[in-house]
Amino acid sequence: MASDDDLFWMQRALAEAERGRGAVEPNPMVGSVVVRDGQLVGFGHHTRFGGPHAEVEALSRAGTAAQGATLYVTLEPCCHFGKTPPCTEAILTAGVTRVVAAMRDPFPKVAGGGLAQLRAAGVAIEVGLESDAAARLNAPYLKRLATGRPYVTAKWAMTLDGKTATASGDSRWISGSRSRALVHEVRGRMDAIAVGIGTALADDPELTARPPGPRTPSRVVLDSAGRLPTTSRLARTAREIPVLVALTDRAAPERREALAALGCELIPFSGDGPVPILPLLDELGRRGMTNLLVEGGGRLLGAFLDAGQVDAVDVFIASLVEGGPPAFTPAQGNGRPRMADALRVERQQVSLIDGDVRLQGVFPPSWRLAE
Amino acid sequence: MASDDDLFWMQRALAEAERGRGAVEPNPMVGSVVVRDGQLVGFGHHTRFGGPHAEVEALSRAGTAAQGATLYVTLEPCCHFGKTPPCTEAILTAGVTRVVAAMRDPFPKVAGGGLAQLRAAGVAIEVGLESDAAARLNAPYLKRLATGRPYVTAKWAMTLDGKTATASGDSRWISGSRSRALVHEVRGRMDAIAVGIGTALADDPELTARPPGPRTPSRVVLDSAGRLPTTSRLARTAREIPVLVALTDRAAPERREALAALGCELIPFSGDGPVPILPLLDELGRRGMTNLLVEGGGRLLGAFLDAGQVDAVDVFIASLVEGGPPAFTPAQGNGRPRMADALRVERQQVSLIDGDVRLQGVFPPSWRLAE
Repeated sequence: MASDDDLFWMQRALAEAERGRGAVEPNPMVGSVVVRDGQLVGFGHHTRFGGPHAEVEALSRAGTAAQGATLYVTLEPCCHFGKTPPCTEAILTAGVTRVVAAMRDPFPKVAGGGLAQLRAAGVAIEVGLESDAAARLNAPYLKRLATGRPYVTAKWAMTLDGKTATASGDSRWISGSRSRALVHEVRGRMDAIAVGIGTALADDPELTARPPGPRTPSRVVLDSAGRLPTTSRLARTAREIPVLVALTDRAAPERREALAALGCELIPFSGDGPVPILPLLDELGRRGMTNLLVEGGGRLLGAFLDAGQVDAVDVFIASLVEGGPPAFTPAQGNGRPRMADALRVERQQVSLIDGDVRLQGVFPPSWRLAE
Repeated sequence: MASDDDLFWMQRALAEAERGRGAVEPNPMVGSVVVRDGQLVGFGHHTRFGGPHAEVEALSRAGTAAQGATLYVTLEPCCHFGKTPPCTEAILTAGVTRVVAAMRDPFPKVAGGGLAQLRAAGVAIEVGLESDAAARLNAPYLKRLATGRPYVTAKWAMTLDGKTATASGDSRWISGSRSRALVHEVRGRMDAIAVGIGTALADDPELTARPPGPRTPSRVVLDSAGRLPTTSRLARTAREIPVLVALTDRAAPERREALAALGCELIPFSGDGPVPILPLLDELGRRGMTNLLVEGGGRLLGAFLDAGQVDAVDVFIASLVEGGPPAFTPAQGNGRPRMADALRVERQQVSLIDGDVRLQGVFPPSWRLAE
C-alpha cells in the first residue's frame, strides 16, 4: 500500500523527471529515486535522448545502498534492449526489493512487461501513485504514442482588448521583454515552431530560440502557394536551422525550386486547398517530433483548433489597450456557434511577467492512451 | 517630520476611508485616526453623503483622549459650513495638537484654507504623507472637480482569444458566476452604467446590481436614433430605476415620445451623428455623478477611448477559446496606428476568480488637479 512517504518520494521523482524536458524527446521524461530505511540513497533522471535511463542513474548513485531499497520511478521500467540495456535487469542486479511506478509505459515493447518481469522475480510492485501527474508530465510522449502526432502548444500574445496587431498589421511589441525571453525559453524545448505564411510575410520572423535551449526547433511554414520570399529571414537561414515549407498544388514549380535552392525542405501535399493539418502533423510525428509550438497567426491557429489539434495554450496578455477594428485576433477558423460550446482551458497557471499576464493551460486530451 | 509610525497610522486612515466607497459620492472618501502616545484612541470614516465627516467620527470616538493627540486624515479637513459644520472647529475644540493630512482638498471652498486655519491656531501641520495613495483613492472625486466629468471605468469580459461574443452575437456566458457576482458588486457602487444601443438590442440587459449595493446606478443608453425597444427590460423597468436615453437628431419624435411615456428620461444632443461623449459626460457630471461604468459593446468603448475618457479598466478574461471571425472584440473606435502607441494600463491588480483572470488597472490621469 502506498503511504504518505511513498507520495513524497514519488513527487521527488516527478521533479527529477521534469529536468529532462526538451532534452530527452521523443523519449519520455523519467525521474527516479532510491530510498532505503526512509533515507534517499539515489536519484536520477533521463537526461538526454540516447543517454542512460533514470533508474540506472539513480541506482548508480545508490551503489550497494540499493540492496533491499525501494525504487520510485515515474514510468514503468523498460524491459527491452533499446539504446541502452533493459532497466529491469539493472533493478534486479542492484537488489531492489520494491518498485513503485507512477504509471505503465504504453510503449509497445514495454506495455506492462517491465513490471511483470520484476514481479516474476519477486520484487514487490505498486503502480498508479501520482499517475495523473505523470500522465500530464508526459502528455506529449503519450499523445505521439497514441496518435502518431506531436503535441501542439499554441502561443500567442494579445492586448487587453484582444488584438494581436493594429489594423495596419503592426505587432511589435505586444508583450514585454521578459515575456519574450520566456517565449525563447519555450522555443528551445520544442521540436518545431509553426507559423502561417501571413505571419511570415507580415513579421519576417526568425523563429529561433535566443539564447539556444536544449533543442533546436525546426521552423515550419504553412505556405500552400509557396509564397515565402527568398529574401525572408527564414529562407536565408534555412541552411543553418531547418526550414520546412508545407505546400500544396497551389505552389508553382518555380517557387518550389527557389525555396529548395536556398535549403528549405519542401513538404508537399496534394490538392489545391490550404495545407491540411492532420497529414502535416502525421508527417512531423513520423519525423520523431514530439512538441510543436504554433505561433500564429489567427488563421493558422483557427485551422489547428478546427482540426481539434491544440493540446495546450501559452498566452501572454499585455496591459495595453489598442482599440480599432478587430482586424487581427488570436484565433479565427470556423469558431463555435455558441459561447457555451467554447473550448475550456483547464489546469490554468497564471503568472505576472512585469506588466503582462501569462496564462498556461491544457485542453482535455482528445486522444486516448492504449491501455 | 513624518516617521514610520506616521506612515502606519496614515495607512490605517486610508483603509478607513475606503469603507465609504459607493456611499459618500459625490463627496470624497475620507478616513481619519486619532493617536495619543502611540495608542489609537479614535478612528472613523465618512460613511454617507450628508453624514458626519471622518474627523468628527474619529474625534467623537476619542473623546477627551484627543487632547494633545495627533489626528491623521486622508484629505485636508474642511473649514466651511456645508452639510455639516467645519471640521477645523471640531479639531481645535478637541485639543488636537498635530494634524497629518495626506493631501490638500482641491475643493474651492477648502483648497488649503483648512490647513491654514489650523496652523494659525497653533496646530502642527504636515501634508503629503501617502499623497499618491490618497489621490488614487479619490481619483473619481478629483477628476470630477478638475473636469466636471465622472470617472469612467470600462468593464468587459472576453475569451482567451479576445472575443466578447460568437459570430452570431451569443455572449452568455463568457465569465463564470463568481466573476458576474463581482460585476454586480461593482455596479452597486456606481452612479451610472452605460451601454451602447447595439448591446442593449443584442443582450436586452437589465444593468441592475443584484443584490443591491450602497448606490443604485442609473442606466444610460447611448442610442442616437432612439431605437431602444419599448419591450426591452430597460424600458419596462424605467419607472423603478432611472433609465437615461441619450439621443441625437437621428431620433424620430414618435420614438422619443414612446420612450418618455415609459418613464425613460431623454438626454437629447443636437446634430445627426452619434451621441457625443464629452457633452454626455458633462451632463452626467452636472447631475452629481462621480462614477460611470461603461459595459460595452466594443463600439461604445471605442468611442470613449477615442474621446480620451476611459480612466480605469476592469477586465474578466475567461479560460475559453472561441475561435471564429473576429466579429466582436472588446474595444473598437479609431484605434492606435502603431502598437507602440497603445494605451498602457498601470497599477494592475490581477486576481483569479475560479477559472477567470480579472485584471483591474488605471490609465495615467489625463486631467490635472488644480494646485
